[in-house]
Parts: sequence; C-alpha cells; structure tokens
Amino acid sequence: MTCESNADLQEIVDEVRSIAEEGKVADYIPALSKVDKNDLSVAIYERNNKCIFAGDYKNKFTLQSISKVLILALALQDRGIDYVFDRVGMEPTGDPFNSISKLETSIPSKPLNPMINAGALAVTNMIKGESEREKWDRILQFVGCLANNKQISYDLEVANSELETAFLNRALCYFMKQHKVIHGDIEELMMLYTKQCAIEMNCFQLARIGAVFALNGLDPETGERLIPIHIARICKTFMVTCGMYNASGEFAIKVGIPAKSGVSGGILGVVPEKYGIGIFGPALDNKGNSIAGIKLLEILTKRYNFSIF
Amino acid sequence: MTCESNADLQEIVDEVRSIAEEGKVADYIPALSKVDKNDLSVAIYERNNKCIFAGDYKNKFTLQSISKVLILALALQDRGIDYVFDRVGMEPTGDPFNSISKLETSIPSKPLNPMINAGALAVTNMIKGESEREKWDRILQFVGCLANNKQISYDLEVANSELETAFLNRALCYFMKQHKVIHGDIEELMMLYTKQCAIEMNCFQLARIGAVFALNGLDPETGERLIPIHIARICKTFMVTCGMYNASGEFAIKVGIPAKSGVSGGILGVVPEKYGIGIFGPALDNKGNSIAGIKLLEILTKRYNFSIF
Amino acid sequence: MTCESNADLQEIVDEVRSIAEEGKVADYIPALSKVDKNDLSVAIYERNNKCIFAGDYKNKFTLQSISKVLILALALQDRGIDYVFDRVGMEPTGDPFNSISKLETSIPSKPLNPMINAGALAVTNMIKGESEREKWDRILQFVGCLANNKQISYDLEVANSELETAFLNRALCYFMKQHKVIHGDIEELMMLYTKQCAIEMNCFQLARIGAVFALNGLDPETGERLIPIHIARICKTFMVTCGMYNASGEFAIKVGIPAKSGVSGGILGVVPEKYGIGIFGPALDNKGNSIAGIKLLEILTKRYNFSIF
Amino acid sequence: MTCESNADLQEIVDEVRSIAEEGKVADYIPALSKVDKNDLSVAIYERNNKCIFAGDYKNKFTLQSISKVLILALALQDRGIDYVFDRVGMEPTGDPFNSISKLETSIPSKPLNPMINAGALAVTNMIKGESEREKWDRILQFVGCLANNKQISYDLEVANSELETAFLNRALCYFMKQHKVIHGDIEELMMLYTKQCAIEMNCFQLARIGAVFALNGLDPETGERLIPIHIARICKTFMVTCGMYNASGEFAIKVGIPAKSGVSGGILGVVPEKYGIGIFGPALDNKGNSIAGIKLLEILTKRYNFSIF
Repeated sequence: MTCESNADLQEIVDEVRSIAEEGKVADYIPALSKVDKNDLSVAIYERNNKCIFAGDYKNKFTLQSISKVLILALALQDRGIDYVFDRVGMEPTGDPFNSISKLETSIPSKPLNPMINAGALAVTNMIKGESEREKWDRILQFVGCLANNKQISYDLEVANSELETAFLNRALCYFMKQHKVIHGDIEELMMLYTKQCAIEMNCFQLARIGAVFALNGLDPETGERLIPIHIARICKTFMVTCGMYNASGEFAIKVGIPAKSGVSGGILGVVPEKYGIGIFGPALDNKGNSIAGIKLLEILTKRYNFSIF
Repeated sequence: MTCESNADLQEIVDEVRSIAEEGKVADYIPALSKVDKNDLSVAIYERNNKCIFAGDYKNKFTLQSISKVLILALALQDRGIDYVFDRVGMEPTGDPFNSISKLETSIPSKPLNPMINAGALAVTNMIKGESEREKWDRILQFVGCLANNKQISYDLEVANSELETAFLNRALCYFMKQHKVIHGDIEELMMLYTKQCAIEMNCFQLARIGAVFALNGLDPETGERLIPIHIARICKTFMVTCGMYNASGEFAIKVGIPAKSGVSGGILGVVPEKYGIGIFGPALDNKGNSIAGIKLLEILTKRYNFSIF
Repeated sequence: MTCESNADLQEIVDEVRSIAEEGKVADYIPALSKVDKNDLSVAIYERNNKCIFAGDYKNKFTLQSISKVLILALALQDRGIDYVFDRVGMEPTGDPFNSISKLETSIPSKPLNPMINAGALAVTNMIKGESEREKWDRILQFVGCLANNKQISYDLEVANSELETAFLNRALCYFMKQHKVIHGDIEELMMLYTKQCAIEMNCFQLARIGAVFALNGLDPETGERLIPIHIARICKTFMVTCGMYNASGEFAIKVGIPAKSGVSGGILGVVPEKYGIGIFGPALDNKGNSIAGIKLLEILTKRYNFSIF
Repeated sequence: MTCESNADLQEIVDEVRSIAEEGKVADYIPALSKVDKNDLSVAIYERNNKCIFAGDYKNKFTLQSISKVLILALALQDRGIDYVFDRVGMEPTGDPFNSISKLETSIPSKPLNPMINAGALAVTNMIKGESEREKWDRILQFVGCLANNKQISYDLEVANSELETAFLNRALCYFMKQHKVIHGDIEELMMLYTKQCAIEMNCFQLARIGAVFALNGLDPETGERLIPIHIARICKTFMVTCGMYNASGEFAIKVGIPAKSGVSGGILGVVPEKYGIGIFGPALDNKGNSIAGIKLLEILTKRYNFSIF
C-alpha cells in the first residue's frame, strides 16, 4: 500500500490538532499513557487503490475496541448468524461499554450487542480453533489479510498489562459463564481477548481495513472477497448504531458514517462504496473517543458530504 | 396524490399477510383493538410523484409513536438543535420505550432520545404556541402539510381513551417536571400528546410523509422545502438508531432503512433519495412493531436493495 | 401531659448541639428552611406517666416522614394485614426513599415497604373514608389520640408548599396507578398525603406517641388500648428495619431502637416496654436524619443501654 | 453438650413437617440435593446449659450462608469495626443475595452489607493469616470454639462442587477487585469461601453457637468470653435486618428474632438473653429459607413470645 501526503487533509489536521488539549490520554495501564497527547494522523484509502494521508503516518497504536468489529466479522464467518445472535443481541444500549447490570436484569442473560465488552468477550469466545494458539493465529491472519500486511502483530507490553489488570472483564466473563453465554477457561479467553485488543498498526493499515468494509468485503486492491457481503453489512450497521461507545447516537447525527473507536485513540471509519478512513489521535473525550479524531471527521463529513443519512 | 395498485407489491402483501396470525393487536385501549388483525396495506411514494400501493388503501390508522419523529422535526424548527438536545439526548437505549428507571439513574436526569416516551413528551413540551390550542393547530398544520392533506385530523375516541388511561406517561411527565426537563401544566401536555398520537391517516398519506424525508425535506410534488435539510437528516438518523423500539438494532441489520413504527401497526419507512413508504398492519410482534409490516420490508429490501448499509 | 426539665438530659443536649453546624436544614420548600439550625429539643416519656425534657420544648415541627408509621398503624386497622401487605412489601431496601426504579423492575410492581415514599403513598391511599375530608378527619383524630391532644393540626403553609412542588410523589402515584397499586384521584391523594406530612407537634407530644408504641399500643396514662398489639409490633419492626432512611442499618447497629425520622428534623424513638422519645433538631445529615438527634440517641443508648440487640 | 428429646417440641415438629412438601431442596450442586426433603430437626440451647431437641439430631448439614455471620464476627475481631465497615456497608437491601448491579450503581462501589454474597466475600477477604491454610485454620478453630467441638470440619464434596461452579461469586470478586474492595488472589479467596460455606454440623452444635450470641458473646457453659459484646450485638443486628435473604423484613414481623439461614436448609436463631436455636430442614421456600424451619419458628415465637419487638 502506498499513500501520498495531501495538503488539504494536512490543513484540516493542523486546524483540529489543538483540540487535543481538551482531551485526556487513557492511563488505566502505563503502556497506553506513554504516547504524545498531540499526535494526530489520518489516512483515507480510496477505492481505486489511491491513498492520502496527513500527520505522522509512522505512529503505531493498538486497536483496542476497534478489534471488536473485526472479531465479529470473523466469528460470523466461523459460526453463522444464528449461532452468534442467539448468544449476543443486536440492540444498542444506553449503558456504558463495560456495564454488567444489564446482564443481570435481562432474562435470559445476554449481552445487548457485540460492541460492548460483554458482547465482544462472548464473540471472541466463539472464534474457532483447537487451542488458544490456533484461535490467535486465525485472528492475526484475518486481520493481516484485511490490512494486507502479514507482519501485523500485537504489543506484548500492552497485552500483558491489560491481562494483569482486567478484573472487570473477568467479572463479565464469569457472569456470562454462570449464565452459559460463554464456555471454557476464562484465563485463556482473557489472553486471547487482551492480545486482540493489543493488535498494533498505523493509520494506513486501518484505513485499508475500512476500505474493505466500504466495498462490502472486497479487497480494494485485488477485488478478492475477504468478507461475505452480508457480514460486512452487519458490521457496518453495528458501527453506526453502537460503534462510538455512548456517543454513537450523537456521532451518527454529527458525522453519519459507520465507525468504530478504541481507547487508544484510533478510529476506523467507513464511507460506503468510497473510502476507508484510519485515524490516530490519543487524546480522548469524556466518552472515550479520540477528541481530535471526532472533530476531524465532523469537518470531513461537512466538506465532502460523507453522511449516509 | 394519486396512487396505482401494483401487482408485484400485491403479491408480496398476499405472501406475508398470513404472518399476522402470529401477532397480536394492541388492546390496552378498546379503540385500538377494534381493527381487523389481518389488515395489511402498503404504499410506496416515488420521487417523481408516482405512487403504487397494495392492500386496502382506505384503511385509516392513528400514528401513535410515528408522531414522535414528526414532532421532533417541528420542535427542532421551533427551538433549534441546541435547545432540544440540551434537554433530550441523542443516544439509543436498551431499555423499553416507556421506561422510567434511566431518568432516575442518569445525572442529570435527561431522556436518552426523542423516540422513547420520556423524550417524546419532553419534545412535545417544546412545541411553540400561546395555548394548547395554538400548539395543536401548529402540529396539525405541519403534519397536514407533510401529507399534503389539510383534512388530516385525529381520532377523538382514541385520544380520549389514551388521555384517561396514560398514567405511566403522567408518571414520566411529573418525574421530568421535578427535574426541570419539562415545564407547565401536565394535563395540558397530556392532551396535546395524546391528540398527536391519535392523528389519523392512511398508508398513502404516510408514504408521502416518508417521501419528504427521503428528499431531505423537499415536497415530492412541488419541490418546496418543508423541513430544513439538517433537521430531516437528524430525524432519519434517529429512525435508524431508535425508530423501531427495542428491535431497532435488529431492523437496521435485517432491513437497513430509516423507519418509525407505532403501536397501531403503522410503519413510516424512508429509502433515502428514492421512496417514502407507508404501511399499516395492526398485528404486532412482541416488540410492538407490525409483524407483517416488518416482514414486508424485509422482502422489499432484499428484492430492491433498499438498505443504506 | 406534664414534663419536667432534666439536668442530665440538658447536659447531653448542650454537648451535642454544636454538631448541628455540620448539618443542613431541609430547604426544598421555603417553609421548612425558616427554622433555626441550632434548635434541639428532646422529651422522654416514661411508662409511669412521668416525662422529662431538655432544650426548648415549645418548638413545633411537622412530622414529615414520621407520619408514615402512624398512617401505617391506621391503615392496618382499617384494612387488615393481608390487604395492606398484598399491596406493599415488608422488605427493607438499599434504594433512596423517593426512588421509582424498583417499582419498574419488580414484577409485579409493589413498593418494597411502607417507609419509603411509594409505600407510604400506597398506604395513605388505603385509609378509609367516604371523602378526602373524612379520611383526613380520621387521620387527625387518630394522631390526636396518640398524642393525647385534640388541638393537633397541620401547618397549612408547609402542606400547600409541598402540594405545589411534589412532582416526584405524583410520578410515584401515577406509576402505581398504572400498576393498580393505588386507586382513585391522584390530586386528592396528594392533598391528604401532604397534609399528613405537615401535621405539627412538639417533642413532648411526639414522645407520648412513642410511649404508646413502647407499651405495645396502650395509652401510657389511662392504659386504654389505642393500637392493637400486633399492629404496634409491626410498626416497631419497620422502624428498626427501615425507619431511618438509608441509614437504618447503621442506626440499628449504633443505637438499636425502633425509630422514625422526618426531613423536618424530628425523630420518634421507642424503647420497648420503657420510653417514648421525641426529638427535634432540624439540621440534617446527608441521609436526611437529624444530625444532633442521632448523636443524642447514640449517647443515650450507650449511657442507658437502650439497644434491643 | 448433652441434649434431651422434648415432647412439646416434637409435637410442633410433627405438625410442620408436612409443609416441606411445598418446598424444594437446593439442587444447584449435586451434593446438596442428596438430602431427604422431609428431614426436620431442631435444638434449643438454654442459658443454664440445658438443651432440648426434636427430630433426627444426627442429621448433619453445611452452614452455607449461616457462615456469613460467623466470619463477620471473626473479621470484626481481626480488623476492627472501622476497617470492616469502610469496605462493606451496614444497610439492608431489596436486591437478591447474589446481585451485582448495586456494586455497579453505588459510588464508590461497596457491598451494601455483609450478609449478601458480595459483602461476605469481602469480609472473608479480611480474615487474618499468612496463607490460605492459616486463615482456614483460624476460621475452623473459631467456629469449633463457638460450637464447643474441635472435630468440626467441612464437607469436601460440597466445597469442591461449589468451587467448580461458583462463577457468579467469581464475577462478584473480580468486580470488587477492580474497585479495590478486595485484594489478592481470587481463586485462593474462593477456596476459603467455599470451604467456610461447607462447614458441617448438626442442629445441636448450631444451637450452641446461637446461645453464644444470645449471651452477647459468652460461652454458655463456662461463661468465658468468646466474642466481644459489641461485636456479638452487631452480628445480631445484621441477623435482624438482613439475615433471612429477601424475606428478612417479613421474618422480622412474623418471628422477630435475630436469625441467619443457609441454602442447605439450616437456620441459626437467637432469642436474646435466653436461647440459641439450631434448625435443619432442607426443603426451601422461594426465598431460599427452610420452609418448615420458618414455620417452626413462627409457632415457637407465638407460643413462647420470642419476638424482640
């Protein structure tokens, strides 16, 4: 993948960079807090294999919650729609991404959707493989294929740090194990989950993944089908209804494209039929979304009329 | 508005009509339960002022929750975006449409979105007018204008029946009055709200309203602007994220168009840039949506690729 | 009723009075906020018709939530145990006294106990009488009888002020009306409820009411039965498990007697077989209990071993 | 400890035994479900070292939730009142004993009281000891001392079975670990907790423990102090406000003594200054309390006026 710097885009990046001052870098694990708060990079990947960027494209970041949508795409291929949605719901929620209460009050207990932690843990639990190792290899291969980069791997320090401290996710797992939503060894699941969250890439690679979704599952270079069309569409739908944490509704109104953010400051954006977008800006707003990244998308959508609504 | 019967559409209607048997007509007030469970009618209004229909187009029904999206469009014009969304949120919710708990647990107390009862009551409270009468006249005029029919009025029996029994909505109102989300006399607000829910029309008229949204606010006959473009888009966004009660997420995946349903069995559908759809099928599924209407839309979206995703 | 000043008691009052500085007088209606924050008076009514006091016994205050236990005693006589507890539960709750969420999540909807607002409103709705006037007369007569004072009435300003602003209580009422826990006209019920909360007395009169409960329902002067023994016991049990708002558990541990507080700063205390206690100290702690009153009872229970545990 | 059969008591046991038919033996682990549903035994231990019994006194049962009150007594001695209640609340709750939602909605996260699972897990986490082994030895020694029986041990099969399946308790633990309410290794804590729940004894031994609480901490045979008086009182207070799961309020009204039940069908009862009561009747009502045991206590309290209210 080659990508050219673009003056217009750089102008917008320069314009919104200062808003990072109002945000806050995630610091719940030391590894995440080491980044420069003012970093901001963006890549836009076009259908015709053209890509433009602005900001420091070399910056790498971990996917964190962005991985939820990729894992969903893989699990839907592994298990089929009925299996997955018998165990995880399709509805957006007004509760925080890490909430456990709704699991208790819903009868039967079922995570509301695959974009909240409970749902994503359940979906990761569905990935096929004889061993944790085999599951992990399959995940990495799938993501590498979407990003067209076989070197893609994960940040060991971030993964280990999360593994040591993710007590809330363990609480969600055990609660769901009690209610037979998930199965098997929880520590093994936690290893797989924290590794997938720690998958590392730059904004180019993320933009290319967005382009696959923009093309309903086709490789933007070769035209090869990487994700079945109906699964690509399901993923995009969740990105609209619950991709941006508790600000998904507001984002749908203000930007209006399928997108998924992560607490590392990454945003995966999709302009259907047209572009994949990858953004990295680690300063977060109070909902956990990249504050400069959101602003950038607001400007882009106004200027280029990206909204699907 | 003229509308022609269409054989293809009639075939689909005949195909799905029997599914009504699995549904249940709303019976919480006697006036709603009087309809024929097997009724099913649909109209599709095209851009070029062509309209096709199937089923008994003469059937009238009350808007019920469909009115929420129309009132929102009017309130946004009356008060502006900031005023409205300072008082009502933009986020979808996993809670039932008539839930009160989230009002208590959210700080500050604020309905999550304008498509749940709490939010719609707050939005109705924002309609401008010196008196309940004046507010009502403005609502009726606005809806009549969208439907291009000045005779549109409301079903007095349904309105009165709801007014007498809507204790839960009063509870929501008083709770929000305590928290200063709404103001003024609650009984007056209840009168206005129950009348707007009881606005009566047929599927043609509803399809025409859908066409206005499909054209981002333009009159599909005259091209005149009836709703500002940014407001039409906001309304469509809410129709996607929370238009179909607690099945909005599933509907987005299975159908994928902006839509709003009512407990009377009506569905307002929007195929952006293309069609407005009006459906009436009073047998409801367990989420409160027209069971045959949903099925009809699933078939249409598959056949004609309506989905925005 | 005659009552003598007591030096020991006065000493304790003087000792704890300064703690009122850390509290806050209720100010949600103007009428309540007019009192002197440092007021503190206490009366202890003994079995043998002896009464001692300390502080300014002339201070009158409204019962507020203290009335809940008196109304419960009357409703149990009016309707019997089964009728009352079919509609209102017996269990303490960790939720705030004015919470509505549990009404929604409990199936069937039922207030958890008669000491929270929802339960007390439902209990007031059970008082017998052909009209609001007759019900009110019966309440006033019953309370006057317990206090041995037929002049006891209510503070009109407080009652009216609460009537105008009690939107949350109306929300609770309408919610319960929807679920058929309460019946009839809500505004009439609100009038009755706000008047009973505004019943006015001094600490002597309240202590005498406590003595009736201490003697399991007997008039401490005449020995006449004023409340059936099993009802007096039920009332005392609720005073232990949920008489002091969300600090009932802590109060049971630290003081250990049946007691009921009100937001006016009054506390009704009962030392079984021995004393009735009336306290007025309007500065409240963050749970809504009289801060000096609680401290006073902690000292009394340590010195005189009042605890029933 | 010697104990004599008593004809009066046997008559009551025979009278209530049949009510077990309406109950249901706990079956969430196989080991608990093996008992005879119609078993019923009771022992009443008097101050003067006299003990009477009825039913088959040889029946042994595991303490289950009864252990919560004993562990609390030990933790309060180990850590002091402030330490314990900084981490666990004193308030009763209307939520189920195994609920997790309130941990999420309370700020800061804190179990409401030591009688629900979350609170009991946190209290067990406070027991002093260099190792799990040392902590367990201290627990066993303390319980053996209260029961005056050094042979008291635990049911390995029950403990292991619970350890394998207690996913909900692990969820509670990890949630509290996230919020720093508990510390250290969760699996070690789970081992300790499941063993203490599996401590096994008969109704005599349980009655003797009750007698220690009845005498405010004194050994009923030797008069030696086994539990400090203020701690014994705190334990009895929790037994009143939240000892019988979600039926604590009703039990306080209908029976009116400090008591703690377990899902094995055991009940520990305390008649202050007078008796300790041990009951075993494994058929449970829908709240998880021994159905025949509750009935037995209702009859005893009526006949002998046990109520503290």
